Amino acid sequence: MNPRLLALLLLFLPAAWASAAIAPTHPRLLLTPDGVTALRQNLGRAPLFDAALAEAKAQVDRALAAPLEVPVPRDAAGYTHERHKQNYTEMQLAGLLYQVTRDAKYARFVRDLLERYAQLYPTLGAHPAGRGQAPGRLFWQTLNEAVWLVHVSQAYDCIYDTLSPDERARYETALLRPMARFLSEERMQEFDRIHNHGTWAATAVGMIGYALGDEELVQKALLGSKRDGQAGYFRQMDELFSPDGYYCEGPYYARYALMPFILFAQVIENNDPGQQVFARRQQILRQAVYATLQQTSPQGAFLPFNDSLKDKDIRSDEVVLAVDVVYSRYGRDPRLLSIAQRQGSVFLGGPGLEVAQALAANPTPPAFPFASVEFKDGPDGRAGGVGLLRATPAADAALVLMKYSAFGMEHGHYDKLAVMYYDQGREIIPDYGAARFLNVDQKFGGRYLPENNSFAKQTIAHNTVTVDERSNYGGSFKTAEEAHAERVFFSAQDPAFQVMSALDRTAYPGVLMHRTVALVRDAKLPQPVVVDVFRLRASAAHRYDLPYYYAGQFLETNVALTPHVTSRPVLGAKHGYQHLWVAAEGQATGPVRFTWMNQQRYYTLTMAADATARVALVQVGANDPSFNLRNENAVLLRQDGRGDHVFAAVLEPHGHWDGVRERTYGGRPTIQEVRVLAASAEGTAVRITGPGGLEWTLLIAAAETVAGAHRLTVGGETFSWEGAVALRKR
Amino acid sequence: MNPRLLALLLLFLPAAWASAAIAPTHPRLLLTPDGVTALRQNLGRAPLFDAALAEAKAQVDRALAAPLEVPVPRDAAGYTHERHKQNYTEMQLAGLLYQVTRDAKYARFVRDLLERYAQLYPTLGAHPAGRGQAPGRLFWQTLNEAVWLVHVSQAYDCIYDTLSPDERARYETALLRPMARFLSEERMQEFDRIHNHGTWAATAVGMIGYALGDEELVQKALLGSKRDGQAGYFRQMDELFSPDGYYCEGPYYARYALMPFILFAQVIENNDPGQQVFARRQQILRQAVYATLQQTSPQGAFLPFNDSLKDKDIRSDEVVLAVDVVYSRYGRDPRLLSIAQRQGSVFLGGPGLEVAQALAANPTPPAFPFASVEFKDGPDGRAGGVGLLRATPAADAALVLMKYSAFGMEHGHYDKLAVMYYDQGREIIPDYGAARFLNVDQKFGGRYLPENNSFAKQTIAHNTVTVDERSNYGGSFKTAEEAHAERVFFSAQDPAFQVMSALDRTAYPGVLMHRTVALVRDAKLPQPVVVDVFRLRASAAHRYDLPYYYAGQFLETNVALTPHVTSRPVLGAKHGYQHLWVAAEGQATGPVRFTWMNQQRYYTLTMAADATARVALVQVGANDPSFNLRNENAVLLRQDGRGDHVFAAVLEPHGHWDGVRERTYGGRPTIQEVRVLAASAEGTAVRITGPGGLEWTLLIAAAETVAGAHRLTVGGETFSWEGAVALRKR
Repeated sequence: MNPRLLALLLLFLPAAWASAAIAPTHPRLLLTPDGVTALRQNLGRAPLFDAALAEAKAQVDRALAAPLEVPVPRDAAGYTHERHKQNYTEMQLAGLLYQVTRDAKYARFVRDLLERYAQLYPTLGAHPAGRGQAPGRLFWQTLNEAVWLVHVSQAYDCIYDTLSPDERARYETALLRPMARFLSEERMQEFDRIHNHGTWAATAVGMIGYALGDEELVQKALLGSKRDGQAGYFRQMDELFSPDGYYCEGPYYARYALMPFILFAQVIENNDPGQQVFARRQQILRQAVYATLQQTSPQGAFLPFNDSLKDKDIRSDEVVLAVDVVYSRYGRDPRLLSIAQRQGSVFLGGPGLEVAQALAANPTPPAFPFASVEFKDGPDGRAGGVGLLRATPAADAALVLMKYSAFGMEHGHYDKLAVMYYDQGREIIPDYGAARFLNVDQKFGGRYLPENNSFAKQTIAHNTVTVDERSNYGGSFKTAEEAHAERVFFSAQDPAFQVMSALDRTAYPGVLMHRTVALVRDAKLPQPVVVDVFRLRASAAHRYDLPYYYAGQFLETNVALTPHVTSRPVLGAKHGYQHLWVAAEGQATGPVRFTWMNQQRYYTLTMAADATARVALVQVGANDPSFNLRNENAVLLRQDGRGDHVFAAVLEPHGHWDGVRERTYGGRPTIQEVRVLAASAEGTAVRITGPGGLEWTLLIAAAETVAGAHRLTVGGETFSWEGAVALRKR
Repeated sequence: MNPRLLALLLLFLPAAWASAAIAPTHPRLLLTPDGVTALRQNLGRAPLFDAALAEAKAQVDRALAAPLEVPVPRDAAGYTHERHKQNYTEMQLAGLLYQVTRDAKYARFVRDLLERYAQLYPTLGAHPAGRGQAPGRLFWQTLNEAVWLVHVSQAYDCIYDTLSPDERARYETALLRPMARFLSEERMQEFDRIHNHGTWAATAVGMIGYALGDEELVQKALLGSKRDGQAGYFRQMDELFSPDGYYCEGPYYARYALMPFILFAQVIENNDPGQQVFARRQQILRQAVYATLQQTSPQGAFLPFNDSLKDKDIRSDEVVLAVDVVYSRYGRDPRLLSIAQRQGSVFLGGPGLEVAQALAANPTPPAFPFASVEFKDGPDGRAGGVGLLRATPAADAALVLMKYSAFGMEHGHYDKLAVMYYDQGREIIPDYGAARFLNVDQKFGGRYLPENNSFAKQTIAHNTVTVDERSNYGGSFKTAEEAHAERVFFSAQDPAFQVMSALDRTAYPGVLMHRTVALVRDAKLPQPVVVDVFRLRASAAHRYDLPYYYAGQFLETNVALTPHVTSRPVLGAKHGYQHLWVAAEGQATGPVRFTWMNQQRYYTLTMAADATARVALVQVGANDPSFNLRNENAVLLRQDGRGDHVFAAVLEPHGHWDGVRERTYGGRPTIQEVRVLAASAEGTAVRITGPGGLEWTLLIAAAETVAGAHRLTVGGETFSWEGAVALRKR
């Protein structure tokens, strides 16, 4: 959008959503008196908003009809945990409903619960199920306590005017200030962490600070416990996102972090517009929301690298809030409306009303621009990144992601240069994600499972190379956090040859890993294929293992495999290997072909190999006494005793299978062979062949010599190219 | 519907779809001259018909633009197989398009292919990939050859008038008559079988007979190769369906058999209305279609007992045809339109036009009456049956099926008294169905896999009791075919207590098996539960194994299990046991509780047991060298050294889990205990208890004493009831 037009639009934002001077009035957090008037005046005019309000009303009205319950905390995912979550949600909604309807019953409900919490809270010590460094009081971890206060401060703000001075004094003294003190002083380390937990804590303390008109709490929230800018909300904003808006933990936790970032930005803007929080860092909040949306699957799930649960998607409350606020604050991009439409819900506040009104006026908004895109990692954008190639913006088009970012904090995985691949709108080469059943009490209280550490985080759980059966950095979190991979090249200019290339020198000392992944279209092939070249360079000999996890039904391979049919060995002893059954194994005799089917399509991996390569079919699930893992399958290529080695493969989707109509075609792949022609100091050459004169040569400059002209001679043929990567088709 | 009203409606059927005297004109099979006129006059008026026609036109126009290919037959699921299928489909459609459009190019296309086939066919011997008793020539099995002729006879009929006498003579002499002779003479045994293969062959021969005006072929088709009524179409119709319309092979093959039954009925009615084929056996064709529709899952798949592929559903061409013809021939039941709507397509002929017109006029037809229903098996309805209980007609409601039919011919499974259960619209206690990847050449040429016999058909693959690790009838097909289970009782009158009860004395000599399955609603439970009581009576001691296969993620059990984490034993040596890995095993100490989750809901099996019961978690996949099996899971209860024994369980759906919104509740079951109070000559009493005074007693009369009054005294309590089953709630 034209920046002048944008400025103009911002000028005409309804006064309620634009800023106002710090008001002594309530509500003053997410709602303002003018904003409430606007909401009330527009009821019945924006169906999505009305529906969200009706849903909230139904939920709170059910709560009003039921007895209040404020149980003594006991569990981490059972009844008491869920009940306190339910209470804060219902209090926040009741506060909002009070403002919108002026029905005193909603204010009374919030007051009654505040009363009960004010009685309970002073009696609490450490939570009985508390774990880790930051146990809470009401909840097993401080994090949930901050989330509780983020909600309850809104409820308190909404009904503030209905309370007597005595009531206010009682709730503030027994509950709200002690909780702010607990978060910012007793849990100061957590509060000052540059981490989503810190963002939540700062937001909680800042919101209750604004609600109480307590400037000291606000300053702590904005600038850290020492009020010196070394921590706090602004520092979080500066450090946790890259200049592209990439969030350091990846998209699944970006979703979670966006909630406090966006909520508190709204509150700051309403109370302290001089901070210009939405303009900060070249509109980093806007960038962050667009980047998070880009990192979603065709189904709307967050691309599941690092600790990620695949059940979460863009319909989650956090993303609904983020999309609505970004729509409202940054020039009303109509393409965001298509996301709101898929969400089927809006945020209950001014921005949600705006989105609902816009959708009512424009029920067929333009599509969100899903595209091939690279995000750099690190506050300065110099810590690698993630690359994402999409064949087309269509939901069922191929999508391939490579991860070459920094580690990603506690939720990071040891998965340097891992890839994942989607097609037909589904995972085809999946990333396992996290081993956790969120909120399922029977599964370790809903927390991360032991197998998350012992398997899901380990290198062998990912579609990348494990060296010598050890995870990246030997599995050392401290080492991993200090390192990152490096981007080499990313180009999505040519729809027939999109390519990304990255390397890592840190995960395995003495081993240089350089992976190049291209999405190639060709008139000889009905679908775009992925070309994957993984070069390893080391002076010592190593064992290199490269698994491709595949979703679907294995059909055939040209390798003579010995299946383990009456007892299955385990692949190894540690670093995740102990969780892999060996279902079959064998020796390659030349290029390996491996075909499976996933619903309506066939997929073949054709992999360069010779008689020194071993092949195994492995299945997740060994050493899993509580059946916490999903039994996913992989084909694993193993190269032993090598210093330098190149894994090169083509992943080819082909054919069609229709079980209803009993029709099929194209069950065998077109690509016949993948061969490594050369791997020298100048670069790598990979030859891909098939019938009808299909002959491609992928040329990749060695990592040290990316820029400039390159020349490679192989068996009488000389190839010349400019830059990092080139594809020659005969 | 009122029969007089029906008669009236039939009177006013458009003349084209009602019968006409045998016409010397063409077309005369599925189309008639008047019918074609009606189709042409109504183009552009019925969107679903127009869409189906446009799709056919697009398909045939693509074929017209491509070179003709009539390859020498070679494979069973590869290129030549698929190509001949494609040819017959395109020929049939081109014939139809010629009639509708009068564009000569369509007639030429059919003629050119007839010419090629007339050259090829005389050169063919036995098919090189032919297997079994009835190899074909063009195809590996005679069956496909019959299907070819069913299609091509339609094509020939449609373009008959465009051919010169020479051309007709050539095609009839070289191709059509030899093929009819091959089917009815060389493959006489197959032709005269009371079996869907026989139905297809009779239909093929009868259709070409009508097309050529060859009364002898027609008589063979209707009355068998000897024209004596001992075989042929009418005998098939009398023997293959029960009076309820249940098809002896089950719903998956009912779908397949309905195609020739319905097609040929249309042809007979058009040419020989005096046969009154649609009225035959109290409108058995109507009954058969309604029965098949009832036996579908909420997703529209056929309930997968016997050899069934779960990819098939009501959208398949056969069911589209059947629904449209039944709609047209039997009083235009508007509830069939809701099925047509889900199919999204109509048959390209008069009945399809009628359905499309009706849907255009009535786009919100009433729902098909999915209900609890019992179907009896056997031509006289005395060979057991299947019972199907639905909690409500809603698609996401619980559905439980018990199978107590006859064996079901070659595609039958050794699964007497097996159950399957659906909820949330999905399989929760699944039946494995068939082990086959239809049309997937890499998987054994797309044929039934060896594991279909070695696992999928075996008793242990089903949710029923296996005695002494041997399948029903010791796995003897011949013995199985001569026997059947018996219905005891079926009642769906009381929505709070729907119940079915069946027994079998044949599968295991000396062992009486009696299973009673109820769907119970209760105000104390949010969802209906399944109560399952499986009583075994024998004088000798046996090993009784009862697995429940479950779909979803195991969460917890109260049994102390020893997991096999570094190597897994196999459960047994034969009868399917060799395909089950033992993932964990243990000893019960009292009632067994087993909880898993499936997407948004939790499920718990609470099973009566004491310290003599063993429990194992098993997984399908051992001894599967080609990875042909799906790795499904079961919890297995084993009772050793017993003559009399009662397995009693409650399957309880509970709670809710929402991963997007991070909400959950009800993760633990309400039912606390299931206990067998008594099992005597008078009957069985099972007690089910839970909190809040939940105490049910299920009373089941012994198999010998179903009728009349019963009385049972247990520990001072005396229960009296009338009839087969009663439920007492405290």
